[in-house]
Amino acid sequence: MNRICELLKIKHPIICAGMVWWSTAKLCAAAAEAGILGLLAGGSHTAEEMGRAIDQVRAQTKGAFGVNIPLLYSHADGIINVALEKGVKVFFTSAGSPKVWTKRLHDAGAVVVHVVPTAKLAKKCEDAGVDAVVAEGMEGGGHISSDEVASVVLWPAAADAVKIPIIAAGGIADARAMAAAFALGAEAVQIGTRFIACAESEGAAAYVDRLLSIDETGTAVTGRSFEGVRGIRNKLTDAIIEMERAGKSKDEILAFIGGGRSRAATLDGDVEWGSMQCGQVAGLVHDRPPLAEIVRRIVDDYRRVVDRVARMNPA
Amino acid sequence: MNRICELLKIKHPIICAGMVWWSTAKLCAAAAEAGILGLLAGGSHTAEEMGRAIDQVRAQTKGAFGVNIPLLYSHADGIINVALEKGVKVFFTSAGSPKVWTKRLHDAGAVVVHVVPTAKLAKKCEDAGVDAVVAEGMEGGGHISSDEVASVVLWPAAADAVKIPIIAAGGIADARAMAAAFALGAEAVQIGTRFIACAESEGAAAYVDRLLSIDETGTAVTGRSFEGVRGIRNKLTDAIIEMERAGKSKDEILAFIGGGRSRAATLDGDVEWGSMQCGQVAGLVHDRPPLAEIVRRIVDDYRRVVDRVARMNPA
Repeated sequence: MNRICELLKIKHPIICAGMVWWSTAKLCAAAAEAGILGLLAGGSHTAEEMGRAIDQVRAQTKGAFGVNIPLLYSHADGIINVALEKGVKVFFTSAGSPKVWTKRLHDAGAVVVHVVPTAKLAKKCEDAGVDAVVAEGMEGGGHISSDEVASVVLWPAAADAVKIPIIAAGGIADARAMAAAFALGAEAVQIGTRFIACAESEGAAAYVDRLLSIDETGTAVTGRSFEGVRGIRNKLTDAIIEMERAGKSKDEILAFIGGGRSRAATLDGDVEWGSMQCGQVAGLVHDRPPLAEIVRRIVDDYRRVVDRVARMNPA
Repeated sequence: MNRICELLKIKHPIICAGMVWWSTAKLCAAAAEAGILGLLAGGSHTAEEMGRAIDQVRAQTKGAFGVNIPLLYSHADGIINVALEKGVKVFFTSAGSPKVWTKRLHDAGAVVVHVVPTAKLAKKCEDAGVDAVVAEGMEGGGHISSDEVASVVLWPAAADAVKIPIIAAGGIADARAMAAAFALGAEAVQIGTRFIACAESEGAAAYVDRLLSIDETGTAVTGRSFEGVRGIRNKLTDAIIEMERAGKSKDEILAFIGGGRSRAATLDGDVEWGSMQCGQVAGLVHDRPPLAEIVRRIVDDYRRVVDRVARMNPA
């Protein structure tokens, strides 16, 4: 039995990542219906909106889903409270201490998974009683830690550091990467970028088209000296990187960026001046099929990858 | 039959990377004796020194070895010529166009492998007639391309782009990463950092001790806006990163760095102001056994990793 499938009550050991603006009730329900874990993105909901989104997911599926919540987000407490009131039993937490909420969530009968960028934080999560960690490499989209550890090193380092199960994230779009993650010590995978390009995702078509058009070199990390974010290269990322190279301060850069860039890209399709969070693995994503079809490909292809790895015995 | 083993005439599909100052005749011969490919590092030899090193390797082993050569290095042509005169049949080239030397090396009956950081360059290598490529992710030590593509994405992107075999590099120290590389489309692995910490390596003990002491977060990339290098974090990397954040120019930074930093670290053990090129995977390296023992562990553990991956079937 796969420990993550057991813990999260899912058929396949795959999580559809909580992605700001992208992880809506519709995408979350599609994931739950496909036998993987759906997540609602706390970061793009108020508490009230989250309450409604939870109801909407329930109206569409009896499958498993949870809430993803950056603990430093201003609405975090309200969102966690409304999710608990509505009986949500799975919480993916990030960007904050795993010590603050874990006990209260456990007392409410919920499962707690924390996102970590290093093996050291994985150990702290285990010590705090967290049930599993998402070990996310710096090739992934969105916020990345200043440690910038890549998946192929992070996953085994985390697996060596803790006994709780590891969910691998960062650079995964197909069965090849899932098998790699399992070889490196993970027991499940969290996939983001690949699910932006699925039939049920509700953001702007221009964003998805851009994602489909880039190769593996088409993303950039901005704000790496204070708060790194990986997204598709565009006029915005070029401008920020130019400011960084000119030695501009964090305050100057944040003032330039302002607010709403992520929303502008995802909801309004501003592909030049919006922030298009996205992982390097976009270079391996070439189509926009239904979510269940993506899951089916991963599960079906997995056996072929195992056969290849077995045949390649280096002895 | 493994295409890389056939091409390079080696028993196990493993290459001991050509590492400036570390890849001496002794290390190269130890690799060849262990049934993997040894490489002499062009970058830390003059043509005359390379001639002597080739003779020294031959005196110690009948195994396969080659020469690694950054094509932009000032001694590159002299080194290639002396290696050809001495009958070397394997050339790993990097940092330059694969078009310049490939035909001449082929005419001399040699095999040409080129190091690439992107799938696009892998395709250019294939078009230039190169026999195989090393696809090296940005988690690896030493020079890294400004594209900064991580291994878990780079390897399958390269494998999708070409028919010639892929040698995976960047983040590999054990059988887990080898199996991951094979799952992701590679047919062999090139390992650097792990072999710095072997009994036969001849550099300063202080460098190896520092490598053994760091975790996966212990390296940094400097010069990323003009010529990225990954090495162990120390006073030198902190100073360079501070200059970069202050908006100092490439010329100012290069003038500060000066020459001989890599030699100072490796030969003199200057672990604070020397340049200690090293990959993130140092975090998974904890001992300094004989090279043949490292190879044995990888080959022996491989079967166990395959069993794990097969057992984790996500269906």
